[in-house]
Amino acid sequence: MSDLQKYIDKLNSLDFSKMYEGDFFLTWEKSDDELAATFAVADALRNLRERNISTKIFDSGLGISLFRDNSTRTRFSFASACNLLGLEVQDLDEGKSQVAHGETVRETANMISFMADVIGIRDDMYIGKGNAYMHEVVDAVTQGNKDGVLEQKPTLVNLQCDIDHPTQCMADMLHIIHEFGGVENLKGKKVAMTWAYSPSYGKPLSVPQGVIGLMTRFGMDVVLAHPEGYEVMPEVEEVAKKNAAANGGSYRRSNCMADAFKDADIVYPKSWAPFAAMEKRTDLYGKGDTDGIKALEKELLAQNAQHKDWCCTEELMKTTKDGKALYLHCLPADINGVSCVDGEVEASVFDRYRDPLYKEASFKPYIIAAMIFLAKCKNPQAVLKALEEKGTQRWFQA
Amino acid sequence: MSDLQKYIDKLNSLDFSKMYEGDFFLTWEKSDDELAATFAVADALRNLRERNISTKIFDSGLGISLFRDNSTRTRFSFASACNLLGLEVQDLDEGKSQVAHGETVRETANMISFMADVIGIRDDMYIGKGNAYMHEVVDAVTQGNKDGVLEQKPTLVNLQCDIDHPTQCMADMLHIIHEFGGVENLKGKKVAMTWAYSPSYGKPLSVPQGVIGLMTRFGMDVVLAHPEGYEVMPEVEEVAKKNAAANGGSYRRSNCMADAFKDADIVYPKSWAPFAAMEKRTDLYGKGDTDGIKALEKELLAQNAQHKDWCCTEELMKTTKDGKALYLHCLPADINGVSCVDGEVEASVFDRYRDPLYKEASFKPYIIAAMIFLAKCKNPQAVLKALEEKGTQRWFQA
Amino acid sequence: MSDLQKYIDKLNSLDFSKMYEGDFFLTWEKSDDELAATFAVADALRNLRERNISTKIFDSGLGISLFRDNSTRTRFSFASACNLLGLEVQDLDEGKSQVAHGETVRETANMISFMADVIGIRDDMYIGKGNAYMHEVVDAVTQGNKDGVLEQKPTLVNLQCDIDHPTQCMADMLHIIHEFGGVENLKGKKVAMTWAYSPSYGKPLSVPQGVIGLMTRFGMDVVLAHPEGYEVMPEVEEVAKKNAAANGGSYRRSNCMADAFKDADIVYPKSWAPFAAMEKRTDLYGKGDTDGIKALEKELLAQNAQHKDWCCTEELMKTTKDGKALYLHCLPADINGVSCVDGEVEASVFDRYRDPLYKEASFKPYIIAAMIFLAKCKNPQAVLKALEEKGTQRWFQA
Repeated sequence: MSDLQKYIDKLNSLDFSKMYEGDFFLTWEKSDDELAATFAVADALRNLRERNISTKIFDSGLGISLFRDNSTRTRFSFASACNLLGLEVQDLDEGKSQVAHGETVRETANMISFMADVIGIRDDMYIGKGNAYMHEVVDAVTQGNKDGVLEQKPTLVNLQCDIDHPTQCMADMLHIIHEFGGVENLKGKKVAMTWAYSPSYGKPLSVPQGVIGLMTRFGMDVVLAHPEGYEVMPEVEEVAKKNAAANGGSYRRSNCMADAFKDADIVYPKSWAPFAAMEKRTDLYGKGDTDGIKALEKELLAQNAQHKDWCCTEELMKTTKDGKALYLHCLPADINGVSCVDGEVEASVFDRYRDPLYKEASFKPYIIAAMIFLAKCKNPQAVLKALEEKGTQRWFQA
Repeated sequence: MSDLQKYIDKLNSLDFSKMYEGDFFLTWEKSDDELAATFAVADALRNLRERNISTKIFDSGLGISLFRDNSTRTRFSFASACNLLGLEVQDLDEGKSQVAHGETVRETANMISFMADVIGIRDDMYIGKGNAYMHEVVDAVTQGNKDGVLEQKPTLVNLQCDIDHPTQCMADMLHIIHEFGGVENLKGKKVAMTWAYSPSYGKPLSVPQGVIGLMTRFGMDVVLAHPEGYEVMPEVEEVAKKNAAANGGSYRRSNCMADAFKDADIVYPKSWAPFAAMEKRTDLYGKGDTDGIKALEKELLAQNAQHKDWCCTEELMKTTKDGKALYLHCLPADINGVSCVDGEVEASVFDRYRDPLYKEASFKPYIIAAMIFLAKCKNPQAVLKALEEKGTQRWFQA
Repeated sequence: MSDLQKYIDKLNSLDFSKMYEGDFFLTWEKSDDELAATFAVADALRNLRERNISTKIFDSGLGISLFRDNSTRTRFSFASACNLLGLEVQDLDEGKSQVAHGETVRETANMISFMADVIGIRDDMYIGKGNAYMHEVVDAVTQGNKDGVLEQKPTLVNLQCDIDHPTQCMADMLHIIHEFGGVENLKGKKVAMTWAYSPSYGKPLSVPQGVIGLMTRFGMDVVLAHPEGYEVMPEVEEVAKKNAAANGGSYRRSNCMADAFKDADIVYPKSWAPFAAMEKRTDLYGKGDTDGIKALEKELLAQNAQHKDWCCTEELMKTTKDGKALYLHCLPADINGVSCVDGEVEASVFDRYRDPLYKEASFKPYIIAAMIFLAKCKNPQAVLKALEEKGTQRWFQA
């Protein structure tokens, strides 16, 4: 049995019918079956590409990207995913400013979507805004499609919002599944999602939030560790607790990095800004209070500097399960003595995990492509089979 | 008989042979048959896309876009049109400055065109410059093709110049044709192209000029209304008068918005800058006279502010034919209490017409694609038929 | 026998097996056969395109471009080449700053390459940096491919470095071959690569270096002429000397433009900055010494101004072989009385050669495409034949 058939069989066992013509906002809005389908399709698309079989399901069409924050990795992952499926990327460049909501969003969303099959948005800077904005866009194009303005409803892919970073966390998760030899091997594994020191300020909360909201669904024991004052959004912690209760794992918070690392199977040490501070910053931006923003930045950098001891050291790594926990990072990491003096991780630890870290990142284009594929194919199994049978070479060899 | 056959039959009744290998500068340089062919092809391409049939006529090739002014709508419309036909968009970003003419244009035009099948240009800022620049580009690539430098002559599509905005006005017109159930129903209809107040300054004249230059060709009664001092280019008014005389409609100017709205079937209230002021601005830019430009801006804003009563109100709308004139706008509109305090239109009017306004905009990508298609297909009817018979799915479904 | 078969036969007579899965850094790292293969494939791809036959060998895939310096010509040439082969271009915009090397390069190179088949880089500003950077990128993605991070190793195309400008010089060379009716007619021809005055400062050395490193391989007599103080990299001169010795031509340096032009068959008058000054500038940038950079700029402009007599005049052109030497330039040229007061060439000379100059430039997209093609096709002859037999129309005609 070919690997592709294995993924198709997997899909046949799952119910993901609501993903067709849907969107991808937050992982916890998706059922277990829907997440499993996303992983299966990501693996299936990679399988086809590795065998030099084209996975284009679009002969023409646009993938619109809208980045409210600088991005190289996610930008290229989205472009790669679109290209893999046959869509041409068009960037909507609105700058980093907080754009107007309401009527303007409704209009712009329609105006860019006449040939758009996908819209990918990254909007993670302002608490309470990014996810809301994505919903506004989806509501606008859904209405536009109903009204006969748009021949198709573009699918939204959340490329990072103020709440979740689903393409990152799903890629992290697929990496874990591969590293541990299958989702069935994850029960009881300990995951340490911990804060780490960084000399820069204002890093988004979407990764730690996305991780605790997703990884608590696989029966793992998830610990979120951070210094006091670096709390994440309480509603996401509620999600993590409910997930853990429902899936036979656990979720707890700690203020001690060593506690989190102790016997961990997986560690994810990464800096982020306190939720409350990000809320405050959003207000200051809203008021255009430049002095306030500068003062807050200074305050936050000083606060960070009190926790330089929160670093993923060799010593800490030794305390993990057999001293060999899987080290995760969304990249780029702040590496001691490489990209900064003191940072999130010691250079020797990072070096040892470079190869798995790059592999972790390599799942992202496939995860994004899978999210699009499931929203665009009524019968994904049949489409995968048809692509294999057609067997168009991606890279022509004579 | 399928709808597509209807459009093919229409094309068979028209003479548009000169459009092959041609360019699209101004609507009044095209014959009635040529405009009718453009509408027919736009409808035909939309018909095919709605039936999920690929309309790609290029396997590879580039569509070059050059925007001398910020643009989201037109940029995406052009990108959509290119994508629909199989061309990849490459932006030539020269900034908003007035670029050098003459030798530099000739050289750059050739250097970007080795694989270019289409060049779309928006250059509307400077009176007497934009259209002239487009001709320079076309002359250069025509010569380049003759000299064996370019394997093909790229087609120019005027995406807005100082004189006309043909892709916008043709899309507006196709919207009208659809709303009124056919071009044959337009005779005697009254069109009010009127100035409206906007708190911003220096909006291009190409829309009102394009509208009076085009809509006078369908036997309609076209009124151009604006406050004194907001005159458009006299040569375009001459075009409008001649069109009206030749087509059994009428053209007149008014300095009263109410007069224009009275019993109108179609209203197009929109701000623009006075022609004479734009000429002056062009000179000031040419001299690099920053102080002069600032003074002019101040003067024009003050002039605008005297005419805040030029607004498309509910009251005015009631005076139109059955109180139900078709409201048009090229978007974005300045909406009272939404995007500004006082603007071009009352929010409740705009809201009521949102759906038709978005549909109006949705024709633009197809109009642009039709312009390209007619310049690139020796026998468009045969190509349309062949595309339908081939029946390649745009969006693959298994 | 079709022209295509002629090119295939040529390829059959050459050994270029090492180009498969290779990269293109410097012309002198390639064998004579490899250069001949590049020319043959460039001509073959152009032949197919002229016959409206698609040359797409990729059904999907990305071509990444990274420009560390402004570029219109090379950017469009790269985009054209990628499009010709079926790759979509994605720009990695890092600005013009000297970016970090080492770990950051390794990571970024992998992160952008998940779907990348080609990476084109222009990095010509800093002596000792550009070519080294390209090697870092290639090393990173080669490792990434070995480690299973990347499904394919992207091919690097040097779009201009501090040492060579291979895509430009190969295009220049193919132009010469066509103008002289074949590579076999070049023996004993005299080439004058000479400095010329320009009012701008800091033009890269890669063109003169690339020219003397490449054109000495065809049995021609190459003279590099420049005022004292405008020396190029000594190691490239060594390459030129060795080439000349091995191929039966000659290489010499002169400080007299008239000496170089005398009886020349080919002249290439073009400004560049002194090697030593560019080294100094690189150091100043490294130290962030803004004042030093400004002082150096002033000094270099003053130095240039002493040599305004280094201009390609009608008078000098008369002294060339039959007064009709082939005039070359990479464009844009500084033309007296057109783009500047005093420049590299008199307007009447430039005008007379405009047509051949544009043709010279027209080879660049095909040269780039050939470099990619040879790196991506195990059996290029079979692929060319298969493309011809498939005969997919590039531009669909019914």
